[in-house]
Amino acid sequence: MPVLVMKFGGTSVATLDRIKRAAKRVGVEVAKGYDVIVIVSAMSGKTNELVGWVTETSPLFDAREYDAVVSSGENVTAGLMALTLQEMDVPARSWQGWQVPLKTTSAHSAARIEEIPTGNINAKFSEGMKVAVVAGFQGISPEGRITTLGRGGSDTTAVAFAAAFGAERCDIYTDVDGVYTTDPRICGKARKMDKIAFEEMLELASLGAKVLQTRSVELAMRYGVRLRVVSSFEEQSDNAGTLVCAEEDIMESNVVSGVAFSRDEAKMTLISVADRPGIAAAIFGPLSEAGVNVDMIVQNISEEGRTDMTFSCPTDQVLRAEKAMNDAKGRGDINFHELVVDDAVAKVSVVGIGMRSHAGVAAQMFKALQDEGINIKVITTSEIKISVLIDRKYMELAVQALHDAFGLEKVT
Amino acid sequence: MPVLVMKFGGTSVATLDRIKRAAKRVGVEVAKGYDVIVIVSAMSGKTNELVGWVTETSPLFDAREYDAVVSSGENVTAGLMALTLQEMDVPARSWQGWQVPLKTTSAHSAARIEEIPTGNINAKFSEGMKVAVVAGFQGISPEGRITTLGRGGSDTTAVAFAAAFGAERCDIYTDVDGVYTTDPRICGKARKMDKIAFEEMLELASLGAKVLQTRSVELAMRYGVRLRVVSSFEEQSDNAGTLVCAEEDIMESNVVSGVAFSRDEAKMTLISVADRPGIAAAIFGPLSEAGVNVDMIVQNISEEGRTDMTFSCPTDQVLRAEKAMNDAKGRGDINFHELVVDDAVAKVSVVGIGMRSHAGVAAQMFKALQDEGINIKVITTSEIKISVLIDRKYMELAVQALHDAFGLEKVT
Repeated sequence: MPVLVMKFGGTSVATLDRIKRAAKRVGVEVAKGYDVIVIVSAMSGKTNELVGWVTETSPLFDAREYDAVVSSGENVTAGLMALTLQEMDVPARSWQGWQVPLKTTSAHSAARIEEIPTGNINAKFSEGMKVAVVAGFQGISPEGRITTLGRGGSDTTAVAFAAAFGAERCDIYTDVDGVYTTDPRICGKARKMDKIAFEEMLELASLGAKVLQTRSVELAMRYGVRLRVVSSFEEQSDNAGTLVCAEEDIMESNVVSGVAFSRDEAKMTLISVADRPGIAAAIFGPLSEAGVNVDMIVQNISEEGRTDMTFSCPTDQVLRAEKAMNDAKGRGDINFHELVVDDAVAKVSVVGIGMRSHAGVAAQMFKALQDEGINIKVITTSEIKISVLIDRKYMELAVQALHDAFGLEKVT
Repeated sequence: MPVLVMKFGGTSVATLDRIKRAAKRVGVEVAKGYDVIVIVSAMSGKTNELVGWVTETSPLFDAREYDAVVSSGENVTAGLMALTLQEMDVPARSWQGWQVPLKTTSAHSAARIEEIPTGNINAKFSEGMKVAVVAGFQGISPEGRITTLGRGGSDTTAVAFAAAFGAERCDIYTDVDGVYTTDPRICGKARKMDKIAFEEMLELASLGAKVLQTRSVELAMRYGVRLRVVSSFEEQSDNAGTLVCAEEDIMESNVVSGVAFSRDEAKMTLISVADRPGIAAAIFGPLSEAGVNVDMIVQNISEEGRTDMTFSCPTDQVLRAEKAMNDAKGRGDINFHELVVDDAVAKVSVVGIGMRSHAGVAAQMFKALQDEGINIKVITTSEIKISVLIDRKYMELAVQALHDAFGLEKVT
């Protein structure tokens, strides 16, 4: 029998009614002849409650105990989903991570999947079980303790099962009906894409289009798992949602596929830094140690042995970044004239694998922004992405202007 | 190191503060030099919530899935307790049933413990771990699935661990400070007992003194585990609580140890039943099938081939019992003149192993009741117990009178 993996996130299993709704979707696929592996998250809110208890009990918790506690939410949903399917006369049973066993590293709370033996579950499929309901986000360490996979762990579980079982597809059921050219709340012309390449999805995911966890997309790309993002809350059809797939499976694509953005960015500039070998390490080492997630980095041309160094980070990390820089200055590790902070900027990016073969995308982007009178503060580029920092108040306008400029409302 | 087992019930771990309080008790025992095995229940209310979800999802649920869901509450508490102990610098870790492994039969939701290998936990004790926190109520079946032990399962888990590890004692922390001669809410002179024999505790437990689950007392008796019932909410001392132990460990005991009672009893009498061989089976078979828990049974002397048969059951089972009897009469299986129901009776019992060697206890009991003008409706006796049914309105009076008559307020 062909195998299908279906993953339901926290909002899709938040109540018994929603579990029933999800189970009906599973029933539809079973009726088509699939053996189905269902991956479930905890009912929404449950994991946060458990995490709250752990951190209140022990701020610097033993991650092994954190995992033992936090994994329990998924076990509850897995059992309830199996029972719901049984009520629909679909032969199903639940599997906890250690029962599969989903083998991981010992890096508790951020474990990596090492192996998913298929024997136990396949034996049950061959006995007539139609659905294996697996608790997502969890596994077992070589020491026999429960591990969890960290943020987005259930998406990663789903993709890993799809790879291990050679599944025809991995469907991620969520509260949006697919991946859009940009956020429809900001741009009314945003269009749901039928297909998107792994590489594009990775850029969009890491830029803040919170549909799929970056890690699960990476894994899907590596193992060639066809991922589909689809809504739990709308009517289902075979072409529903967005298929995330290899570039080769997309016949013709727009030069630009989507416009991503990130609202709460801050730009920090170290004015007149003494420019010497190792200066970048002297700046970004302390920032990393202080837990600052530096995103864009721009170094201006050096004049007379001094340069300006600009970087961006989330606004809520500005204080930490300032302290780290002033401490480094105090220790004499770096020397700068002034630290200028602009915490009212946003990042806007255009993404598309078509850029590789098309020149002039950057120029077109800058022109569109200029036409709206939007000043560009920082620019960075990658092979399939161009990002700019602009004043936050222009963010929505910039997204709309770029969406129009690249004609994203139209299918190619 | 000597091993101590400490069990904390749902109310004793209902909040993070209460878990902290319980952990401090554990710390005291560790400081005395014990290796401690802590058995925890789910936070109070949690198991009921999970059971509610299961039964709403699937009224005739698959007990294997029920167990997978319902066992999760104990896993949460076990992890939180381990974290709390670690915060107190007590080396501790949590164990789920399958990790021990606590091996049970496959009778899901009512599994019996088959074996508790001590190797895994003892290995950790010898590495310096001081406390093994074990999720109560759960185990693993020969098929590798999670099982639960049914009502009172955590008490049973605690006693079984004490037996397997040869523990010096098994302390059951609960919301009362010990076993009383009778319920202090009914009789102001009720006295907490320092010691009570297993046999007496069994009679008191099954008669409604809901301190310890009958099954755990039976297990403790079989394996000679010294059980102590002690309060989570009062100051601790070495002589706190009540020790449940072998008869031989009690130097001298009162003839009567306690007065038990059960308020909501009903007395049913089948008037003028045709007395023939097999008539008892013809009556009590249908009652059993109807789920009626028959307690006392009295058959009067037969006259001219007919007799009166009286039995008692909980008041909320009266309707079922009446229907079962009338149906049996309708089928011609039994024949009686009339079914008289008195649903305003209560059962009062005196219990004591001293009865075995003392005559006249029954006479003393009946005299005490007579002195208060209380009419006795039914009497049954066992080796260490005498029970009577009386009008419910006299129940409190009877308990107080018997407590006085046998001098239970005084230590022997």
